[in-house]
Amino acid sequence: MQANFNNLKNIIDEVYHHHGFLNIETPIIERQEILLAKAGGDTEKQIYKVIKTAESADAADQALRFDHTVPLARYVVEHENDLAFPFKVSQIGRNFRGERAQKGRFREFYQCDADIIGRGNLPIYYDADVIETSLDAFLSFGLDTPVVARISNRKILSGLIAEFGVEDKATDIYGIIDHSEKVPAEETRGAFYEIGLDDEKVAKFLAFIDIHGARDFVVSKLKDLGIEDEMFNAGVDELDTVIKLLEENGYGENAQADMKIVRGLDYYTGTVFEYCLPEYRQIGSVGGGGRYDNLTGYFTEQVFPGVGSSIGLTRLFYILNENKLLKNRDEKPVDVAIVPISTNEIAYSMKLAKELRKTHDSVTVVLTEKKLGDKLTYAAKIAKAGIVIGETEASTGKYETKIFS
Amino acid sequence: MQANFNNLKNIIDEVYHHHGFLNIETPIIERQEILLAKAGGDTEKQIYKVIKTAESADAADQALRFDHTVPLARYVVEHENDLAFPFKVSQIGRNFRGERAQKGRFREFYQCDADIIGRGNLPIYYDADVIETSLDAFLSFGLDTPVVARISNRKILSGLIAEFGVEDKATDIYGIIDHSEKVPAEETRGAFYEIGLDDEKVAKFLAFIDIHGARDFVVSKLKDLGIEDEMFNAGVDELDTVIKLLEENGYGENAQADMKIVRGLDYYTGTVFEYCLPEYRQIGSVGGGGRYDNLTGYFTEQVFPGVGSSIGLTRLFYILNENKLLKNRDEKPVDVAIVPISTNEIAYSMKLAKELRKTHDSVTVVLTEKKLGDKLTYAAKIAKAGIVIGETEASTGKYETKIFS
Repeated sequence: MQANFNNLKNIIDEVYHHHGFLNIETPIIERQEILLAKAGGDTEKQIYKVIKTAESADAADQALRFDHTVPLARYVVEHENDLAFPFKVSQIGRNFRGERAQKGRFREFYQCDADIIGRGNLPIYYDADVIETSLDAFLSFGLDTPVVARISNRKILSGLIAEFGVEDKATDIYGIIDHSEKVPAEETRGAFYEIGLDDEKVAKFLAFIDIHGARDFVVSKLKDLGIEDEMFNAGVDELDTVIKLLEENGYGENAQADMKIVRGLDYYTGTVFEYCLPEYRQIGSVGGGGRYDNLTGYFTEQVFPGVGSSIGLTRLFYILNENKLLKNRDEKPVDVAIVPISTNEIAYSMKLAKELRKTHDSVTVVLTEKKLGDKLTYAAKIAKAGIVIGETEASTGKYETKIFS
Repeated sequence: MQANFNNLKNIIDEVYHHHGFLNIETPIIERQEILLAKAGGDTEKQIYKVIKTAESADAADQALRFDHTVPLARYVVEHENDLAFPFKVSQIGRNFRGERAQKGRFREFYQCDADIIGRGNLPIYYDADVIETSLDAFLSFGLDTPVVARISNRKILSGLIAEFGVEDKATDIYGIIDHSEKVPAEETRGAFYEIGLDDEKVAKFLAFIDIHGARDFVVSKLKDLGIEDEMFNAGVDELDTVIKLLEENGYGENAQADMKIVRGLDYYTGTVFEYCLPEYRQIGSVGGGGRYDNLTGYFTEQVFPGVGSSIGLTRLFYILNENKLLKNRDEKPVDVAIVPISTNEIAYSMKLAKELRKTHDSVTVVLTEKKLGDKLTYAAKIAKAGIVIGETEASTGKYETKIFS
């Protein structure tokens, strides 16, 4: 289990580095005020406050981060003068939410984020760059099931809402669409009616959120809607650009346009996406992200737009395990276990271990005072191979290596 | 900075693995009751409690771990049936203490722990194994200053206290000795008098804690004291065994016996040690550990003795930086930056990046819409080499690689 988890984490770390992201470590504890300003909604209720043993709850002015956004914003502002922008940066670490205990939800969980931060502006091509990076990580896992980035652009829906003149209901509409995958179609229809949309608009929104598939198909469908709103058309163009780049770089099978994707958080403003395993769609997304206009609003007047992609590693790992999608890795952490027959050979065995570490990845010495048979049984459990050291081996320096099956 | 920190962390991770330790991840949040039971003293006041936003402080029954002991105990008990004992295990992660803000002290800090856990018993040789492992990590940093493990054994001091018949003052004596390095000798002498020791005993304890140096010297000094207590002599033998093994394996320069070492925590029962940089002694220890009789007392009746060694990475990194002991690593995270001249060459450049990643560690594409000169300036800041892609390069697939100085 742990070896499998570490393996996924290391792959993500390597792939992010491979794509030119600098890995940084950021604090887990942050001022509560700042975290709450960024959170809102359900997330706010899930934030863990921290207090020292002697303090009262009212004294609490610190909390645990619930995602990597605030620590990253602080990092960018603090190191602005040392950084070259666009700044490609990764954070692989734990976040915390006081969720109700349920399957596949964890109160502390690893998120593996890749972000690209511009100063003043950031071209749309970087949206393809960051999605490609995360897709590469997913593909490097060697899963026996496909992975797809479902991509949309917030400007498309914003533009549609403007065209229909229902800007006052925008937040509700975002919420209904974000929720629409988890409920029957009839419930979504009802929800649209409930916020006061008429028959025609309900039908149009329902038709809109059903648009998904290959880029060229989706783009022509969207253009067929004949929407004149500028925002709408800018969104369609951006979507086209992002997915086209992914296609041209060999990720056509892994990138779909999908108008159901809006992402919950308010701060996304352009490209939005979620990663899913289409053969296991019922389990929901295993990561996602999007484009935001300004990372650092709380800290500085200067504007840092960015695009970020996050793999929810703890959740992903749980899902892959539940569905037996991970080939079980060898849990034996050790290459060679050296077994001295008696305590007389311990010093030689430890010296031999030091020597073998020059050419082997992991070497240990079995130092228990048990019968040889017991020591070998233990060695075979932890190591791929064993070397028994008796008096002769210690004096001649000649020994046999036994491969454990 | 970050590249240097990551480098140290990766070295420790690799060296621990190299010595046959399995790296595990354990929870940060734990039941407060269990953490407090393990903490005691000053540590107790430094524990961070966590509460959900809506809760009152009295409702808090959870807290943040202050070291890796409790999470490891829980892990061992939960996975007992899957583990082979002795279990060599490493944890590299953050711990939390509400310390007063001061130089070199941090409220969240990385500790890199290697532990060896036995079931029922654990031979003394493992104490040498775990110290050797951490020393190997320190030596792999390539510091320009020596590193020494100062080693003692709690049984020696316990035996001495028993021989002198002052067991009722044991806790005070431990405290005075633990504190003795931070205060003038006169203050230590006064403290011994203050707890009611007579002239002769004060003189003997002062002489005792001054014993330090090479193993053979210290062992003969201790034997010269003519103490008959069994515990005392068992401690001297264990100390002799542990350091002798380290000497025989080439760590003679890095292992000293030192009777001033007692370690603060109550649960150490045999070998105790601290790592220090003798040329920077005033900065205190940069890690340490020891032997404990039972890891899992809170969770199970079964006894799991262990020996653990911890490198205080955040503190160590701070100290190495302050004293300019780290060679500055290349902060450029990228090997090759590809610079398309216009947007027409973006697709080709991203394809080329994908290709180059097969043979290069880290490759990125500069996707900003700026003048070529600006793009090259940026590329030179983040990457070791650059490739400019214009129309010709994109159509012929031929390009030059420019090494940035």
